[in-house]
Amino acid sequence: MQKLKPSQRAINTKPSPIRGLVNLANIQKAKGVKVNHFNIGQPDFPTPKDFFTEVRKFKEKVVAYAPSQGRAETQEAWEVYFKSVGINYKAEECIVTLGGVEALFLAHAALLDAGDEILIFEPFYPYYENHADILGTKVVPISLSIKNGFHLPPEKEMQKKVTKRTKAILFCNPSNPTGVVFTPQEVKTVAKFAKKNKLWIIADEVYREYGFERAALSMAKIKEVQNQVILTDTTSKRFNLCGGRVGVLASHNKEFMQNVFKLAQSRESVPTIEQLAVVKLLKNAKKYYQPTIKLFKERRDAIYHGLQDIAKTVSGLTFQKPEGAFYIIVGLPIKNAQHFSEWLLTDFRHNNTTLCVSPAAGFYKTKGLGLNEIRLSYVVGIPIIKESMLMLKKALSEYQNKFPKLCK
Amino acid sequence: MQKLKPSQRAINTKPSPIRGLVNLANIQKAKGVKVNHFNIGQPDFPTPKDFFTEVRKFKEKVVAYAPSQGRAETQEAWEVYFKSVGINYKAEECIVTLGGVEALFLAHAALLDAGDEILIFEPFYPYYENHADILGTKVVPISLSIKNGFHLPPEKEMQKKVTKRTKAILFCNPSNPTGVVFTPQEVKTVAKFAKKNKLWIIADEVYREYGFERAALSMAKIKEVQNQVILTDTTSKRFNLCGGRVGVLASHNKEFMQNVFKLAQSRESVPTIEQLAVVKLLKNAKKYYQPTIKLFKERRDAIYHGLQDIAKTVSGLTFQKPEGAFYIIVGLPIKNAQHFSEWLLTDFRHNNTTLCVSPAAGFYKTKGLGLNEIRLSYVVGIPIIKESMLMLKKALSEYQNKFPKLCK
Repeated sequence: MQKLKPSQRAINTKPSPIRGLVNLANIQKAKGVKVNHFNIGQPDFPTPKDFFTEVRKFKEKVVAYAPSQGRAETQEAWEVYFKSVGINYKAEECIVTLGGVEALFLAHAALLDAGDEILIFEPFYPYYENHADILGTKVVPISLSIKNGFHLPPEKEMQKKVTKRTKAILFCNPSNPTGVVFTPQEVKTVAKFAKKNKLWIIADEVYREYGFERAALSMAKIKEVQNQVILTDTTSKRFNLCGGRVGVLASHNKEFMQNVFKLAQSRESVPTIEQLAVVKLLKNAKKYYQPTIKLFKERRDAIYHGLQDIAKTVSGLTFQKPEGAFYIIVGLPIKNAQHFSEWLLTDFRHNNTTLCVSPAAGFYKTKGLGLNEIRLSYVVGIPIIKESMLMLKKALSEYQNKFPKLCK
Repeated sequence: MQKLKPSQRAINTKPSPIRGLVNLANIQKAKGVKVNHFNIGQPDFPTPKDFFTEVRKFKEKVVAYAPSQGRAETQEAWEVYFKSVGINYKAEECIVTLGGVEALFLAHAALLDAGDEILIFEPFYPYYENHADILGTKVVPISLSIKNGFHLPPEKEMQKKVTKRTKAILFCNPSNPTGVVFTPQEVKTVAKFAKKNKLWIIADEVYREYGFERAALSMAKIKEVQNQVILTDTTSKRFNLCGGRVGVLASHNKEFMQNVFKLAQSRESVPTIEQLAVVKLLKNAKKYYQPTIKLFKERRDAIYHGLQDIAKTVSGLTFQKPEGAFYIIVGLPIKNAQHFSEWLLTDFRHNNTTLCVSPAAGFYKTKGLGLNEIRLSYVVGIPIIKESMLMLKKALSEYQNKFPKLCK
């Protein structure tokens, strides 16, 4: 052990895969360059006015600690929201968390000990692995392929990854970063697999309503595994409220809830004002998210058509029509998407404008995967999407001329 | 490994030592009994009006994620606040955290690996140890004694606890739960000890201004250790804002900051609205906390005189005049403070009123310590303090008659 050094767990934890690019984007912006952002996982629609009205209604004289499990009003509001989407969690089966990400951390900590393994389909939201780094657990990736639109591999591929230490499987549906909405049959396959191997299922369903062709079937509705499902969710995405930080962790498993509650105690509580301000939103959820889903579907179509258009002249693009959330992963005819993404920011210009995209390799755990892929997050308006797809076409052509050795 | 069981780390984590009593208190309250609360670590004064005004001023259309290090305005406000108390941390040396408790967790995680040891003076805030349980580290307690007012033991007692795995010392000053304000000489002793043994110092100074006889010397002011001090603080106590959840972690050590930042990323961000609403409070801190300190000092005097009064007729009380924060630990002439505290709630009545106190054993790690001690938190008005000390006197007398075998 080295004295006066940070912990190995901190040293081993990776920085966000997009942070370096955000710094680079900021440098360009400071020089007056316009940057179209396709790297952000946050809706651009305004937060509902009712949220601000509720914030202003807060009348308690002391902004006191909320209970560690959450304010009773907020727990009950989650019950009402879940009921509205056909999921049955009682208020007392919900712990209010600091966004969805804390629900994921708490579930991870309450289920896995150091050395235990958790299966996660890759590419995945990178902070899942940061949690493993902090907790000394191990993420075992099950690779999905862009070629079949990131749908499930054969079950025997999944089974190969199970060891004595496998304790849970994390299942994000609809998926960030792929935009896939798994079919009801796939959800049942994962449930059956977890049942057979006695694995906990952490079901990350924060994009639940964002299924454009079909609704995502919630893992919480699969009766056979209801005692081993831990559902994580948040108000961030469907209410355009990422900075409100009110999420939830829900489970029917009493033993799990009693134990995870102690971990929740050790961070005291989630902010009181936001907890109360989201109650109205959760109780009338559809009213707020329905209009934005329509708009996201239109944007999805715009980006998909834009990419199809590029594919007419640039060969070697790989992508599928995304089915949900607000992400798409695109394989490009290049060798190093990191280099391409940096080059976009530092060198490529179209009317003094450029693009900020996320190289996808940072979403894979297996080294060498996703090197030629980028993730696009369509949280900008359709005119910007259209302009940006034309820019991407131009950029690929320039890049191929300039760096032929870095192209396929 | 057992399948479909919670993790051992969760099972091993202790519940809050006062939670059971809070449930018991709520049962009595539901029956119409009035309960005077001396168990809560939260000021009862109203949150400053300016906080609510600032909350209402929030005008951004999207409540977006704040940066993981905090909003620039909030980082800068912490710099201004620190400067006002003679501490020099630049904005970029501050990471905004979810209250003080998250700052403690992040520091713990960024400094200690599983199996590493952290020295903590006991009795201590129990969630320090929950963090160790979650992270697989080990709290090594250095026992303080009620007999010398919970001041430092001789340095050789501290040195005995150092092993090859000792990586940090946690120092809370002024102290929860003892109310001690360590002398400047004691602060220097801890600094020298850390320097000699190459230990990180986590300095928890959330009660900084609550020193009634003398100000607490900040560990951040000791030049010799400035590169190994991690300061944790919060807006919770001095602004009566426990439910606002805006704390800070500050350090001059660049390597530490780079690494802890990655851990902070993995929980996204602290709520945006509160971050902006505390800016004015932090920049004009004295205006808000000065009046409450005077009131706490008056309460401290009231509780101390009340206890002196009890000691005139009940022998075997042990306590010292608390020097800061808003806590006092009292040794009672009984064998089991847990039993006494429960009995107060279930059986003792004075004008249909009773007391809720915290048995102190839960604040000690070493088994057998603090069994006859209670912690009183004086976050109620002076009339209630006076009434409650009379009640405590009556209660001790009744308890001695009823349970002679449980008394000393």
